[in-house]
Amino acid sequence: MSNRKFTLQCPMPELDFEVVTLGHGSGGKLTNDLLDKGVFSLFKNDALQQRHDGAFLDIQGKIAFTTDSFVINPIFFPGGNIGELAVNGTVNDLAMCGADPKYISLGLIIEEGMRIDDLWEVLAGVKISSEAAGVQVVTGDTKVVEKGKGDQVFINTTGVGLTHPEVDFSMDRISPEDIVIVSGPIAAHGMAIMSVREGLTFDSDIISDTRPLHEITNTLLDKFGKDIKLLRDPTRGGVATVLNEIARFSKVGIELIENEFPIDVQVRAACEMLGLDPLYVANEGIFLAVVKKHIANQVLPTIQSHKYGKQARIIGEVQEENPGKVFIKSKIGGRRVIGMLAGEQLPRIC
Amino acid sequence: MSNRKFTLQCPMPELDFEVVTLGHGSGGKLTNDLLDKGVFSLFKNDALQQRHDGAFLDIQGKIAFTTDSFVINPIFFPGGNIGELAVNGTVNDLAMCGADPKYISLGLIIEEGMRIDDLWEVLAGVKISSEAAGVQVVTGDTKVVEKGKGDQVFINTTGVGLTHPEVDFSMDRISPEDIVIVSGPIAAHGMAIMSVREGLTFDSDIISDTRPLHEITNTLLDKFGKDIKLLRDPTRGGVATVLNEIARFSKVGIELIENEFPIDVQVRAACEMLGLDPLYVANEGIFLAVVKKHIANQVLPTIQSHKYGKQARIIGEVQEENPGKVFIKSKIGGRRVIGMLAGEQLPRIC
Repeated sequence: MSNRKFTLQCPMPELDFEVVTLGHGSGGKLTNDLLDKGVFSLFKNDALQQRHDGAFLDIQGKIAFTTDSFVINPIFFPGGNIGELAVNGTVNDLAMCGADPKYISLGLIIEEGMRIDDLWEVLAGVKISSEAAGVQVVTGDTKVVEKGKGDQVFINTTGVGLTHPEVDFSMDRISPEDIVIVSGPIAAHGMAIMSVREGLTFDSDIISDTRPLHEITNTLLDKFGKDIKLLRDPTRGGVATVLNEIARFSKVGIELIENEFPIDVQVRAACEMLGLDPLYVANEGIFLAVVKKHIANQVLPTIQSHKYGKQARIIGEVQEENPGKVFIKSKIGGRRVIGMLAGEQLPRIC
Repeated sequence: MSNRKFTLQCPMPELDFEVVTLGHGSGGKLTNDLLDKGVFSLFKNDALQQRHDGAFLDIQGKIAFTTDSFVINPIFFPGGNIGELAVNGTVNDLAMCGADPKYISLGLIIEEGMRIDDLWEVLAGVKISSEAAGVQVVTGDTKVVEKGKGDQVFINTTGVGLTHPEVDFSMDRISPEDIVIVSGPIAAHGMAIMSVREGLTFDSDIISDTRPLHEITNTLLDKFGKDIKLLRDPTRGGVATVLNEIARFSKVGIELIENEFPIDVQVRAACEMLGLDPLYVANEGIFLAVVKKHIANQVLPTIQSHKYGKQARIIGEVQEENPGKVFIKSKIGGRRVIGMLAGEQLPRIC
């Protein structure tokens, strides 16, 4: 890979090895070398300093807890890398719980032979993005598997956050006339990865939308409290799949308005070129909010006032009819059903 | 595999598929099928029922947080499977923090083509062992990677526990005259796995010692409080490596007594056959306790009164001399240095 944007900010120390070996996963001397000279020099905090099997957290209140493993291929992609993605992904899962992200764990499964400078760039991505999101990496684990039994690196990040006092998210609270809002342009992450894999070229790169969303969601809960009925980030399966899950578990219908989805021109072009519906393409840095009708016109500018929400838009409405189904209404008045993603569109998108 | 001990207790439902496909990791319809009919029918609790991106935890106090990924090969072994091992491993890491395990997350990275009945047996192992340990699986994640990019299944379990009010574990508190106790026979887990891989046969199988240790450690903290200075479980790298870490970070010497290590006859025979020092072989169901000298003779029977601690023994003493080093004293008075595990003894032991 050419882009070393994170290593530039966190230079790699001198190490006695160029690639990861099985010994680095032994728990013995080599593991300690990798941790001392590498990981612990990068992530410095009181919890890690204890060198214990776990961390003690300084947190009081209603706690949210979420886990995600990342197996994305390639691990370096336009707009980010697997380390940054893992942090932002878990930060966003906490944000979707209405929680302020506080602590994360970092579990690495490394394939024997991974280059140390690649690993360092991934770890530096974890560091920079966790600092940007205000979360501490307080505990971790490193395993190494034989060449051909993994794929460079898989990362698990598990997060702990402090739930906002006003959170009352539940599928049961969603009811007719609620409004569905999307916080930004859809399909960017999936098409960034797919463009790399398919070798598509455009005037400029399609960039993944990986970024933390908790600042926006915290603000929404501060301002609108329980009138925010649900937040979800449409990652794998895209907007269509998440809306189907909401319709199904809330026992309501959802009607979307065609052409109201914000989408970048190049992303749309790439989707057309590959014959993909952007509603099914994975996202990483946007969320869906289901809100009470009377606040929708205030929620929208609140999201838009944040740098990651400038293109937020109202995309649909909850209905009593057709419970469990999602429809899209065309400009000329037609309606078609939008189902859940069937099969697999793009393996290892996150 | 022949042994379906967990499936016998949790029969597998009728599923429309026999192997895991990439589509099961898509986040779409197949993922929902696997979750609805499989995972959610097995793990039933309020947190999972919400179908959200994370769980809200009912916990107040000082929280311990720990993560571990499991890549053991083979995934089924004498005495357990990877699912049971993952739960007990994380339960024990919390126990080593002096915490009562409460909640765990379950992150699965499945290789395309894994048999569903194998996956079910693993998940049933997670269920039975989490119930036995009194922890709830409250959130999870499923990813699928292409055939040849993983190895059946890797599992991350991350745990949250409630720290005992009397815990005051720190490397800094360890001082000369402290006593080192081991809670049970060493090297069983590593030799169970190695025997399978090397095709060794004995009169009876060598069985992994995977089991939860938090009941014993909770009792120790109830009875002896701050006089328990440190608990550690000697997994990868074995007893020798963990003692070296303690000596190094506590800046003390540790002198062990030869022949005081409890070890099963067959495990010792297997070690001799393969030319391995049992001090470096991985364990899963024992712990090391460093305690104040004056309570050592009370700690020992307390551990021994629990079914998983019957063979506990005093194995050594902390000394002022030779800080950072671990010695073993032979019957005839000689002393030799015991270093940290160098290189890799057995990849993918946990």
